[in-house]
Parts: sequence; structure tokens; C-alpha cells
Amino acid sequence: MMTFQGNHILSVSQLDRESITRILDVSAKMVPYSTRQKRCYVLEGAILSSLFFEPSTRTRISFGTAFNLLGGFVRETVGEENSSLSKGESLFDTAQVISGYSDIIAMRHPKMHSVAEFAQGSSVPVINGGDGANEHPTQALLDLFTIQSEMQHFGKNLDNLNITLMGDLKHGRTVHSLSKLLSLYKNMSITMVSPDALRMPDSVLSILDDAGHKIIQTDKLEGNLSSDVVYQTRIQQERFASSGEADLYRGHFSLNKQVYQDYCKKNTVIMHPLPRDSRPEANELDNDLNDLQHLAIFRQAQNGVLVRMALFALALGVENKLTDYEKPITWHTTK
Amino acid sequence: MMTFQGNHILSVSQLDRESITRILDVSAKMVPYSTRQKRCYVLEGAILSSLFFEPSTRTRISFGTAFNLLGGFVRETVGEENSSLSKGESLFDTAQVISGYSDIIAMRHPKMHSVAEFAQGSSVPVINGGDGANEHPTQALLDLFTIQSEMQHFGKNLDNLNITLMGDLKHGRTVHSLSKLLSLYKNMSITMVSPDALRMPDSVLSILDDAGHKIIQTDKLEGNLSSDVVYQTRIQQERFASSGEADLYRGHFSLNKQVYQDYCKKNTVIMHPLPRDSRPEANELDNDLNDLQHLAIFRQAQNGVLVRMALFALALGVENKLTDYEKPITWHTTK
Amino acid sequence: MMTFQGNHILSVSQLDRESITRILDVSAKMVPYSTRQKRCYVLEGAILSSLFFEPSTRTRISFGTAFNLLGGFVRETVGEENSSLSKGESLFDTAQVISGYSDIIAMRHPKMHSVAEFAQGSSVPVINGGDGANEHPTQALLDLFTIQSEMQHFGKNLDNLNITLMGDLKHGRTVHSLSKLLSLYKNMSITMVSPDALRMPDSVLSILDDAGHKIIQTDKLEGNLSSDVVYQTRIQQERFASSGEADLYRGHFSLNKQVYQDYCKKNTVIMHPLPRDSRPEANELDNDLNDLQHLAIFRQAQNGVLVRMALFALALGVENKLTDYEKPITWHTTK
Repeated sequence: MMTFQGNHILSVSQLDRESITRILDVSAKMVPYSTRQKRCYVLEGAILSSLFFEPSTRTRISFGTAFNLLGGFVRETVGEENSSLSKGESLFDTAQVISGYSDIIAMRHPKMHSVAEFAQGSSVPVINGGDGANEHPTQALLDLFTIQSEMQHFGKNLDNLNITLMGDLKHGRTVHSLSKLLSLYKNMSITMVSPDALRMPDSVLSILDDAGHKIIQTDKLEGNLSSDVVYQTRIQQERFASSGEADLYRGHFSLNKQVYQDYCKKNTVIMHPLPRDSRPEANELDNDLNDLQHLAIFRQAQNGVLVRMALFALALGVENKLTDYEKPITWHTTK
Repeated sequence: MMTFQGNHILSVSQLDRESITRILDVSAKMVPYSTRQKRCYVLEGAILSSLFFEPSTRTRISFGTAFNLLGGFVRETVGEENSSLSKGESLFDTAQVISGYSDIIAMRHPKMHSVAEFAQGSSVPVINGGDGANEHPTQALLDLFTIQSEMQHFGKNLDNLNITLMGDLKHGRTVHSLSKLLSLYKNMSITMVSPDALRMPDSVLSILDDAGHKIIQTDKLEGNLSSDVVYQTRIQQERFASSGEADLYRGHFSLNKQVYQDYCKKNTVIMHPLPRDSRPEANELDNDLNDLQHLAIFRQAQNGVLVRMALFALALGVENKLTDYEKPITWHTTK
Repeated sequence: MMTFQGNHILSVSQLDRESITRILDVSAKMVPYSTRQKRCYVLEGAILSSLFFEPSTRTRISFGTAFNLLGGFVRETVGEENSSLSKGESLFDTAQVISGYSDIIAMRHPKMHSVAEFAQGSSVPVINGGDGANEHPTQALLDLFTIQSEMQHFGKNLDNLNITLMGDLKHGRTVHSLSKLLSLYKNMSITMVSPDALRMPDSVLSILDDAGHKIIQTDKLEGNLSSDVVYQTRIQQERFASSGEADLYRGHFSLNKQVYQDYCKKNTVIMHPLPRDSRPEANELDNDLNDLQHLAIFRQAQNGVLVRMALFALALGVENKLTDYEKPITWHTTK
């Protein structure tokens, strides 16, 4: 198992099945704090530097919230233009300086491998919040946590599942990282639904294949959505060479109530990394599904806070003393 | 009376006279914390999401300060370009996700009614920090609190007042919302001084008229400033079709020491929503008034913190236990 | 000695030798908190407004971290475009309002003397975080603290030192302010290495001259680096009329391991205000020096937190009760 205390979380490749189980178990311990049954202040006085050199409102707020929910302070930076990097500073230097100001760092950057490069200069743990097309490990972990917690309602666990991944599987960083994690579990059947030009890369396919999973690749919805989980993705315009190219695929494989009734199982869980594009020309996941009990997308976003709390707690070695630092909630809560 | 606990504050139209009295009373309780006689930590561990999709330094800092003064954490987002909204996410989805990260939300947005739309997706109370030309209820409340507290010096209350509203009354969201609140009080005389093209909209006039208030509309200063309160406004360039059109009116109805001496009463209180435009071509409220005791504009800005603290306390149901969570100030204060 | 409590820190010119000694002594008291041997919460509940009308990631985070390390909250504003200043508000008005929201203010602004102008309207202490080409007093103080702490290893203090200042001495605000501070100490020898066109201004030279220091001006490295301290600077592109003009000088006086071995003493300490420009065409301080024990640049950045903590503590009058507000660190730290 990976040693978490004092270490960076840069890639899902660092994680074996035992390490993941540890992360998911600690994430589950965070539920009472996230749902405001009580609060935890184990990190009171600690400082998170949240460095979002590529903006991402959801992920940034989620990291900051997670740290606040453990009692710590958050210092934020948004956008590279506000940074010394634009004056020619190396990532190593930035890391040396910022890590001197912080107890832990969460970082997103548009360039592949930049977070790992930064981590080499950091004297405190760095958590990768996404480095371009490369990795977004906390997303993959919250996806896995969501699959686990949704499947528990049906008496299932992470082995022996049927999962459909759908949409832009070529550029979808989240489905790549999730696939790597799924390869650690047993006897899965993974159906990949995408336009031919946006198929899952061979490198990811071979990881799933090596794990002994059954793989189906198709460009048709019919017959391919009756899985335990359907994971829908967004056309990521920012990863295409031109927006015109992205437009070619927008609106393919829309998932709505009719499609759900026609092709999904009675209890198929719908996931999506969010944001979903609700503009009519895209509409990958129709609002007519909002009332569906098995639409897990907002629970999934919520789980992101749990997983990030868990990673902070593990990297800072406080995961076993959370209950020593609890207080009651003093305000009325609607959660 | 409105039930505050757990509810949104989206519009002054939600508020009857009794509700407003409650808000103003709780605001007054906040004075010892704002003036640093002691501090309050009743919201220690609570998280405010401050979403300023339209920038507004003053209002944003005021909300954040108010939450900090009650002991809570603040997570901020500034500018729409940094948001998932630009990737086609609906306000409903954004609200579902962000409300999962927060205990309460303060939101400003350039589009009318967008805050109310957002609130429909939120699982926690949302306070409207301004939605385009529509509403800015906390500004109206702090204006009313200011009128009340300034009038108390003269043994007056919110009934039976003479108030002059002056400047761009057509686009001035603050004077619209304030007028709605004034309609809840008795026997007022409201003088509206504006260029003909920037007169108060009929919809607002009829509310004041229905309340039985005396209304005077004029484009002359002379004889129209001898009120209890003169409320001056800024030409809001951002609400005009072109800056050229705004320029037509800039500099009209400048208020300075000479005008004050010539046309105001001895004790007329001057208010302004700020920022005031101090450039020579605008200069709606001259700096030569800065020493005037009855220039209330900076006390007015201060009162914004009190009112926002009150709304947070009411929405989170802690307004009656503030004194259970007090500590002394440990540092030297110049307040 | 200057009275710190309740007062602004706008310029190094405010400071005599005794005041500086006080700042450096209080800075040294902050080491246990910065290195996480324990934490201090003496400013719990206090609010810093951090106003960076000119972006500066490093300085901004350093101020915010310093305040968090004393237990206080931080409210931040970055970039002038997000501010009421762009609506014609005077700095006086902004100060009146923001100081009403804060217990102390740290401010950076691109315009010379703007921070002092702002301070005139502020009801709470203002610390200058840099006002254009004018002053950056906290940088000068952290530089002085660094020289003092590095020299202590060799049994030396701030008198009787040999110091080389190198690079763009014309535009380098930091070397100007540092020179003013050095003029308060005795019997120094200051060597200025720069291209002729980027020489130290006469106004600064005369201050050092009046202090009785020995001054050498040169455009050659050879023979001029065998000092106790070599202070290297960056070509500050933003201070030149055109980037083309800046390019003329970029890459002159690069300092690398070979130069160090050839021209420095065995123990010469290398300083730099950071960020250093590590692009090949600039490379003022080569990465091959990163392993050098006497490369003090990252310790220097760290010292910035100590000095800013000290200024906050002094201005808020808590410098003598830090130890009354200490708690143990609850998390694993790698510092």
C-alpha cells in the first residue's frame, strides 16, 4: 500500500487496490462533516495553497471546501496571468516558494506533467487537481467512490460490474483515469460507446484488457446501455484543435428519459463528470432526467468533497484522529 | 412575517414591515462586533460561497467580511469567465453543485432574475447580491438601516420623513428597491430630482403612490433638497446602451458644499450607494463635503456589513445566540 | 523609535535603526510558527484586506499566509479591473470603505505613492506591498533580515559587510529600498555591478555616500563578486518603455556555478528578490547553483512571511503576547 503521509498524490498509477480502499474508507468517514451532522477542526491553523493556473470553478471550490470542512485556511491563486510563471519563473522555483508558505498544495495546470514537475520542488504534499489532458486523479477517485456507494444500494461492490462509458472517450481525461482504476477490480464488462473518431485510446484499452475485463467498442446506443452504470461525458471543446471540429460531435449520444426507458436497465445509475452542457445543441444529458432517482451526477459532485477531504487527511496524517476534533453544528442546516 | 431560517433572500418584495423591523433589529445587534468591542464566532466552521459572476469589490468584500465577523469561512468566485457557466452549464446545475459545497450562498450575476433561477437549484439559502438591473435587496436594506439610524439622532423614525432621490432614477436599481421598502412606511414625502429622460419608472411610482406617499417629480435642485435625507446616485454607465449616452447626463445635479448651503436644511443627511464618481466630469458628490457631519455615505457602507451579518444570522437561525459565542478582541483596534 | 501600534508602514524612510531592530527581532520570534513547531492564533477573528490592484502572486500569498499563521482571516482583491476604482472612485473613498471592513490592510498598486494616498483615507493600519516603481518596504526588510540571519552563521552582523548589488540597478525597486536600509548600518562596502545605462540612481548613491559607505560602480563581474553577499536582480520588463529595450540587457551578468567558483568567496551568500527568470535568454541565476548551500534565495522568500507576520503583529499591538496564544500542531508536517 502507498504511504500517504507526507506524500504527493499525482496520478492514479501510484495507487494499488489496497491504497484505493483506504482512500474510499476515509472518504466515507467524512460524510457526517459534509452533511453537517457535526464539524471537524483537526486542521485548524493549517494552510492549503490552492493553485489553479487553469480555472475550474467546481474543482477549485471543492478543494477549498474540503479543507475548510477540516478546519483549515485556504489561500487561492486563479489564472496563470496572475503568476510569476509569466515572468519566466520555473515550476521548481514556484514550488520552492509556495510550499514554504503552505502545509499542503492543490494544483491544476493546463500543461501535461506540470504538476509532477512542480511537486519535485515542493517541500509539502502536492495533490494534482488536473494537469491538462494528462491526469485528474481526484476526479477518478470520486467517480470510483460514487460507483461503490451507488452499487451498495443493490448489494453490489466494485467487482463484477457492467459499466458503459459514453461520448468523447478520446479526449475525456476522466474516463481514462477511471479506466485505470477499474483495471484494479475483477471481472468487469466495459462497453465503450463513442463516434469512431473519438474512441478510447489503445493505451487505455490495453490496461483494461490486461486486467481481464470484457471490452465492447461500439458507436450505437441500442443494446449498450443496460449496464449497472452509464458514465456519460462532455465534448471537451478545449481539447479540440478547433471548435468547428468539436461541433461535429456535439449532440451525438444525447441521453434523455426516452433513451433511458428504451435502452437502460430499471436501475441503471447515470454518472457524468460535470459540468454538463445544457445548451440545446449539446444537451448530452437531458434535464428531463433530473427527477430520476438513479441520476447520480449531483451526489457524484458531492462525493468530490469527501474524497478530497480524505486525501488531505491522509497526506497530513490526521485520518485516525478526526473524532478527537469534533464540535456540534451551531446553525440551522438544510442539508 | 417572513420565515428567515433556511430561506432565500432574493427580493425586497418578500419583506413586509415586520420582517424588515426584524432585520434592522438584528443588524443593530451586530454593532459591537463590527466596531470591535468584542468578536462573535457563532458561525465557526460554516462556509459561505460568495459567487460574484459580475465583479463588485465593495459588495463582495462586505459579504465576506460579514461572514468572517460571525466566525465563518468564505470561498469566493469572481467573474463568469472562470465558471462552468461558460461551458454551457445551467444555473440549476451550478446551484445543485455549489450548494452541496456550502452552508449559505451570496450571489451577484449580471442577468436579471438569474439569482432567483439559481436559488431554485440550491439546497442552502441564497442571498441576492444584485442581479443586473433587477434587484439588490441588501443595498436597499442597508439604505433603510442608514436612514433609520441617522434619523434617530433627531428623534425621528422611518415614518413621516421627507426624502429626496436624485440623479439617474431610471437605471438606479438601488433607488427602485429602496422605494419599494419606503412604501411600507407611513406618510412620506418623496421628491424625485432627475433629468426628464432618467425619471423614476412608473412601476415604482405607482407603488409609492399606492402607499399614500406624496410624490414630487422635478428636474430642478432649487427648493427640492430641504429634506430629511438627500439620496444621490451615480450615472451607471454599465446600464446605458452607449457610454456617449451616459456622458450626456454626467455632471448634472452635482452636489457640493455650496449647493448644500443654498438648498439643503441645516441637518439634511446625504446618502449615496457608492462608489461615487470623483472624476471632474462627473463629480456627483463633491469632496468638499467630506468634512460634513451629515455626509452619511461611509457610515452607510459600514452599515452594509451589519445588514449582511443580520441576513446570514437569520437565514442560518443563529440570531438569538450571538452572545453565547463571544470572545474579547485580542489586538489593538483603531475603530 | 517608530510607534508601530495603529500605524501605517508605507516606506523604509519611516524606519530608524532601532525600529528595524525591533522588526527583525519580532520576525525571529515567528520562526516556530512558520516552521510548524507550534501554531499561533493571537489574531483569531481579525480580518486582513489584501488589495492587490497589481497582481503579484508571491507577495500576495506571503501576506495572506502571514496573517493566517497568526490565526486571522484574509479577504482578497486581485486586479484593478475588478474594482470600483475603474468607476471613478477616489483612493480616499476606497480606503474609507475598505478600512471599515478590515482590521488591517495590505495593498499593492501600480501607481507610485498611491498606497500613501490610500492610507490617508484608511481608519486602520495600511502596509505597503509595493507601489509601482516607488517602494516595496516589506521586500527591503526581508532582504535585510536574510542578510542578518545568513551572516550570523559566520559570526557577523549587519555592520562591516561587503555587499555586491548586481543587474538592473536603475529600475530595481528592491535594491533602492535595501540601499536605504543599509545606510543605517556602519562601515559597509557596496559594489554596484550593472550596465552603464542601468546604473543605480544618484539619489540612492548619495544616501549610501552620506552614510560613509564605500561605493564601487562597475560593469564588470571580475573582481567584484568576492563579497559577503551578492544580491542579483531581474530585468524588470514591466518597468521598461518597450520589451525590446529590456531584451538588450537580458542575459548580461548571468551568475552560474562557474562564475561563482571563479569570482565569489568560498562562502559568498547569493540573494535574489525572485522570481528569477529561468528562460535561457535571461537565466540571471543558473539552476546549476540550486545545490549550493549559500544560495539563500528560497530562505529569503521564506523570511518574507516572518517579516510580514512581524509587521502585522506590531501594527496590531500583539507582538508581546504571541506565546499566550499558542497551540500544538495536530498534523504531520514535512517542514
